[in-house]
This record gives sequence, structure tokens and C-alpha cells, in this order.
Amino acid sequence: KISSERLYQSLMDLAKIGATSKGGNCRLALTPLDGQGRDLVTAWMREAGMTITVDQVGNIFARRAGKDNELPPIMTGSHIDTQPTGGKFDGCFGVLAGLEVVRTLNDHDIETNAPIEVVIWTNEEGTRFVPVMMGSGAFVGKFKLEDILNTTDKDGKRVGDELKAIGYDGKAPVGGRAVGAYFEAHIEQGPILEHENKVIGVVTGSLGLRWYDVTVTGMEMHAGPTPMPIRQDALYAATFIMQDVIQNALDHAPHGRGTVGSATVHPSSRNVIPGKVTFTVDIRHENADQLRAMHERLLATCSSIEKSHNVTVRVEEVSYFPPTPFDPTMVNAVREAAKSSDLSYMDIVTGAGHDAVYMASVTPTAMIFVPCKDGVSHNEIEDAKPEDLAAGAQVLYEAMLPRAML
Amino acid sequence: KISSERLYQSLMDLAKIGATSKGGNCRLALTPLDGQGRDLVTAWMREAGMTITVDQVGNIFARRAGKDNELPPIMTGSHIDTQPTGGKFDGCFGVLAGLEVVRTLNDHDIETNAPIEVVIWTNEEGTRFVPVMMGSGAFVGKFKLEDILNTTDKDGKRVGDELKAIGYDGKAPVGGRAVGAYFEAHIEQGPILEHENKVIGVVTGSLGLRWYDVTVTGMEMHAGPTPMPIRQDALYAATFIMQDVIQNALDHAPHGRGTVGSATVHPSSRNVIPGKVTFTVDIRHENADQLRAMHERLLATCSSIEKSHNVTVRVEEVSYFPPTPFDPTMVNAVREAAKSSDLSYMDIVTGAGHDAVYMASVTPTAMIFVPCKDGVSHNEIEDAKPEDLAAGAQVLYEAMLPRAML
Ligand SMILES: NC(=O)NCCC(=O)O
Ligand SMILES: NC(=O)NCCC(=O)O
Repeated sequence: KISSERLYQSLMDLAKIGATSKGGNCRLALTPLDGQGRDLVTAWMREAGMTITVDQVGNIFARRAGKDNELPPIMTGSHIDTQPTGGKFDGCFGVLAGLEVVRTLNDHDIETNAPIEVVIWTNEEGTRFVPVMMGSGAFVGKFKLEDILNTTDKDGKRVGDELKAIGYDGKAPVGGRAVGAYFEAHIEQGPILEHENKVIGVVTGSLGLRWYDVTVTGMEMHAGPTPMPIRQDALYAATFIMQDVIQNALDHAPHGRGTVGSATVHPSSRNVIPGKVTFTVDIRHENADQLRAMHERLLATCSSIEKSHNVTVRVEEVSYFPPTPFDPTMVNAVREAAKSSDLSYMDIVTGAGHDAVYMASVTPTAMIFVPCKDGVSHNEIEDAKPEDLAAGAQVLYEAMLPRAML
Repeated sequence: KISSERLYQSLMDLAKIGATSKGGNCRLALTPLDGQGRDLVTAWMREAGMTITVDQVGNIFARRAGKDNELPPIMTGSHIDTQPTGGKFDGCFGVLAGLEVVRTLNDHDIETNAPIEVVIWTNEEGTRFVPVMMGSGAFVGKFKLEDILNTTDKDGKRVGDELKAIGYDGKAPVGGRAVGAYFEAHIEQGPILEHENKVIGVVTGSLGLRWYDVTVTGMEMHAGPTPMPIRQDALYAATFIMQDVIQNALDHAPHGRGTVGSATVHPSSRNVIPGKVTFTVDIRHENADQLRAMHERLLATCSSIEKSHNVTVRVEEVSYFPPTPFDPTMVNAVREAAKSSDLSYMDIVTGAGHDAVYMASVTPTAMIFVPCKDGVSHNEIEDAKPEDLAAGAQVLYEAMLPRAML
């Protein structure tokens, strides 16, 4: 049995780095605080007898040797970067549940056949640097190394330089090696498990996601003397697109999602009609055709607003992954582990993107969800019960062990 | 006759300070660039034999003595602070037209009866520091000195400290003295004169203005797993208020105005449902009852959105001046000056607030408008013809001189 206390204590210790006043975490990818978080977790991994390798995009692989080290590793993990106003569990739980599995194997002197690796992926959140799930995407060959290293944040800082600054510009090649299986434990980040009163979510797959940057350009003019009918108000035009992002999702219920998370107005003066507005769009759906329909509608709305409001609208897609079903055998292994541990469980689809989504393209993959309080995530008040986290780690242990013994 | 070349050259020389790449100006109130602009113009004023006094809010009064210096001064002027992406003429024209009047009097050795003062008001634009028309408002007793000095910009910098930093924390008391009359020349900042093919706008009064800060608070949650119906999306809710600001103005046509110039989204991450949005509202009308009706509707819309979208909405009013008619005798003096100078002219109401609006509460006041290209202002491409600017300065001269000779 895994240790609930040890797991929870490690989560709380990691959460001290970048702690926010409202009980959350701000540890943006590749900031010095992310570096401190990495240092702490890798120190724990070394104490647990693991060997650390860092690849060229900063993904960290902690390896526990098996009997046959020629076998591809059984891998688990997640990320420890957070949202600007993020919580203590998103990502960190998956990494530390993996570490807890290893610590438990150590407690019982269990030697697995295949090696086990616990991974910390770089920049899963996609907040500071786009694309989202950058490290795992690079690992599976979805992004080019050079493009990743040249990606900049909004202040123009490069991934390559920021990796160097925190000492995680590793030497190992990115991906290009076999992985036996990939498991990822995570908080649900939605309200369903709690609402259905289940402890374990058996994740059968993921919604697809498309991200865009939209720029609306009008004409800066004086807010007082300029008559209403001749205005080219970039913000007014943008509000109609923003509203249709939501309506688009509602019209593709129940699995459609639509969010405008960020918006910037230029020149941002009270008495100047906005000349330019840039904003982000995030749309998701579990069905590829529906996601495509949502995409078409977004483009159609933008071009109709362009005409009706006498502005120009530019739409640039910046991230994309299709709806991704997980491996049925792996999913079943999770289901059986929950059943044999006498935990309540249900099938669920993840609305959040996870590194597992990319890993599913190169190896049999599954995920384990546990409930989070009120379904709240990407918020400083994100919370999860120690006993639910322990249950998730236990299911991870039960699902991984047989695979590593093959 | 005033000198068109001299006036235009001074405008172009001042515009070099804080020049922007697109031919505009960024000389925000009380920044070092504003300080440099003040230094240049006061140097010209001293060269023209004027005496400089700076009051405790940084208003600059340049005085040309008359025969009877006990008489209250005949005053003219405007401001030299600009919008973040402002033009070369808004404000600067009024100050330099006043200087050109004095230079012309000097050319002809004309001694007036009453002294003449050319004033540079502090922070007319209201962009960096609210309220708008801060210096003239303080002069007429609308704001308390202490409140003004403690006003901060968005980085927390105080007016009092910023005045000191640029050396314009003057010693003279603010207002509390008689002014014989106040004239202000300005570009129209709207399209009417150009459309009607007139050179001089005889300004009969000003629209009233109300400014607000609106804060919508919802709940930060994850953009993926959070089902649409349970969201408390602060930005989505805000878009309905923003749209009604525009619709409110359209429903009070043709003199209603409504603008959301600035908006900030928190935490501003692509995959986080916005938890908080703050934005500005600017509404204007020439009729006091209509302006009040627009105000009531804004409040009603905010409280209805609060209920329908499960968010909280806070509305704070930050600036206000009522619709202000100018002094009929003074307005007629401008009309007669335009007529006797053989210039085309028409009556017009200003949609922009001006320092003249506050001065009208303490002394007979009038304004002179000249056209600006395509009606565009608060934009780097703001432009005006040298001959129209000269015509405006000539009318200012003709209207002021008889008053100063009384
Ligand atoms: N799990 C998680 O928060 N992932 C971030 C990517 C997304 O927005 O879904
Ligand atoms: N003239 C001018 O641009 N004034 C600024 C105040 C306003 O917004 O009307």
C-alpha cells in the first residue's frame, strides 16, 4: 500500500515554492521558481535511488532500474509548472504519485522486470509559452526542437535561454526511444466525479482542443466628438466574436467548450475608441467532426463581424490536438485496479489536455482521475482530499506494477 | 495679422518631444517628456517677455502685463499633455495660438489695458491620472488640492511626486483669483467642420460627460473540464455590459456617446475562465436629462447582468461634468471675429471635454474650433492644415483684443 501521508506531505512541501496569498501556486514554466521546484523533486527522486536524465527541452526522466534494462520503461508522471493563479495539485499530483509508487516499491524491495520512469514534462500549462503540452509534444515528435527553443513569452524571452538560466538545458535527445506504457494520475479539474460521488475516474480519452489568437483592428478616434455611426470600434466588434465563442460551445452541448481567457485593448485610454483588440480563443470537443464545425463557425463569425463592423479580423491558430481515445487494454487495467482496490469508479472523458494525450500517439496510455473540490481548478483555491489522492496513487501502483512485471 | 509660419513652426518644434513612429505624440501628463515640453514652451514665453507662475497643481500661467495690472487678466490656453497614441495638435494648438497672439501684440508694440495670460493646464487628457481636466478643475475649485496631489497612476505614482520630479510643483495657490474672460482655441476632434466645409467652429457649449470604472467578478476555473452551464465567466458577462454602453448611446442619438476605451482581464491565461474583468465607461450627452437617463440605464444593465450571469458587478463613477453652455456674449464675439476676418463659420457643440468647460463656471468663456483631417483625433495620424490653424489663431486674436482693451 502506498503512503497517504508521505504523498500529501510531498505535495505540501512542493507547494511552498511559489505559494500565493490565497493558498495557491504561481510557478510559471521555466521561471526561477519552476527551477526551484525541479531541484526539490529531483532531489527526492535521487534519494529514492533514481537516475536523472534531462533532455534538450528540459523534460526530466527519473529512472528506477529493472531486472532487464533493455526493456522499454513503464512511464508515469505529469508536470509541475502552474497557472499564474494556479493550485497545488494540477500536475504535481501526477509527478508525486509516480514518486510515491517508486517509494512504495523501495519499501517492499520489489524489483520490477522493466525499468520504471517518472517524468516531469516541461511547460504543460501553455500559459507562459505556447503551445500547451510543449515537452510531451516535443517528445513524441509533434514539435521541432529548434521551434521549441525559439518560442518566446510575451516579454520576448526564449525557451532556450530560460532553460539555461534555471540549469535544465539538458543534453539528452528529445524522444526517439521506445516507451512500454504511459500512465498519468491527475485531479479531474471538473465537477463530475464529485457530483457522481466516485473516487476514481477511469479516463477513456480526451476532448480535442484548438487554440487561436484573434486580432481585431479598427480605428482609434476620440470618444467624445466622434459620432457613433462612423466609428470603427475594435472592442465593440470583438465582443460579438467573444460572445459567439461561448454560444458556439453551447450549440455543441454537452461536450463543446469555448473560452476567451485573455484580451488586450490598445491603446487602452478611457477616451479613445479602441483601435486594436487581441484575444485568445480556446475551443474543445470530444468529436472530431463537431470540433471542425466549431472551427468553421469561428472563422465564419470573424469574417461576418469584419464586414458588419468595418474592422479587420485576423485569426491565427496556435495549438491543436485532436480528440484522443486512450488504449482500451490500458483503460481496462485502470478500471480493474480501481475495482480490486474496492474504490468507487466511473468512466470519464477529460476536458483538460494532458501530456498523456501526446503520449497516446507513441505508446499504450491511460489516465487516472481523482475528484477536486467543487470541480475548481486553475484557481488558487483548487483543493483535493488526501484520501482521494492516496486512492489515485494506489490505483496507479496497481495498474503499473503488472505492466512492469511483464 | 498673426504669423501662420511661426505658429506652425512652434507646433512642429514642440511635437519633436515625445514624437512617435507614426507621426504622433506620446507625452503623458507629468512624465519627463511632459516636463521637457513645459520647459520648451515656457522658454518661448519668457522670450516673448512674459512672466511665469506655476501653481501647486502644476498649472503654468504666462503673463503679459497690461496698462492696468489690477484688472483681472484676459486668459487663453489649453494643455500640452497627450494621449498614449496622440497627435500633434490636440491641446498644443490652444497654447501656441495663445503664444502667437502675444507674439503678434509684441510685433506691433500693442499694450493692452488688462494683462493677458496664456495658461498650460495640467493633465487635461485624464489618461494617466483621473479625473480628466484635472488642472482647470482644481483651479475653479472642483477638486481639493490634497486629493489631486494624492491621485495615483496605474503604477501607484502620485501626482505630487511626479510634479516634483519634473520641477513643476509650483508655489502659487490654486485658483481663488478673478479672471476677466477665458478663450480656448482647439482642433474640433470630430468630422463636422470638414464635412460642412467651414473653417471656424463657433463653440456654443459642451456635451456633459460621466466616466466609470466597472469591475465584473466571476470565478476562475479551467477552460476545458468546466461544463458551460456552471461557469461564472467574468468576461462573457462583461461583453453584454460593453455592448449596452454602445447601444445606450445609439438609443440617445444623435448627441449620445458611449465608449469602452480600456479593459483588463484577470488572470489572463488562455485556459482559465476569466475571474475578473475591469473596464472603463465613457458616456456623454448634450442634454442633462438624457445624460442622467443614460447613467440610470448603465446601472440597470449592470445589475441585470449581475443576476443573469451569476457574477458581481461594481460600478464606480470617477469623472463628471454636466452639459455646459458657453457665455452668449463671448460666443458672439467669436462669431463676429470670424465674420470680420472673412472666414466661413458655423455653430458647433464640442463632444470633447476641454479646460474651457471648467473655466465657464468662474468666468465668461468661449471656444474656437478649426477642422482636423477626417475628424480624426486621439490618434497619431491626427492632422490639421496650417491655414486653418492660422485662421483659428487670428480669430482668437480678434476676439481677445477688444476684451483686453476694455
Ligand atoms: N491539465 C491542464 O490543466 N492542462 C492544461 C492544458 C489545457 O488547457 O487543457
Ligand atoms: N480635448 C480632449 O481631448 N479632451 C480630453 C477629455 C475628453 O475626453 O473629452
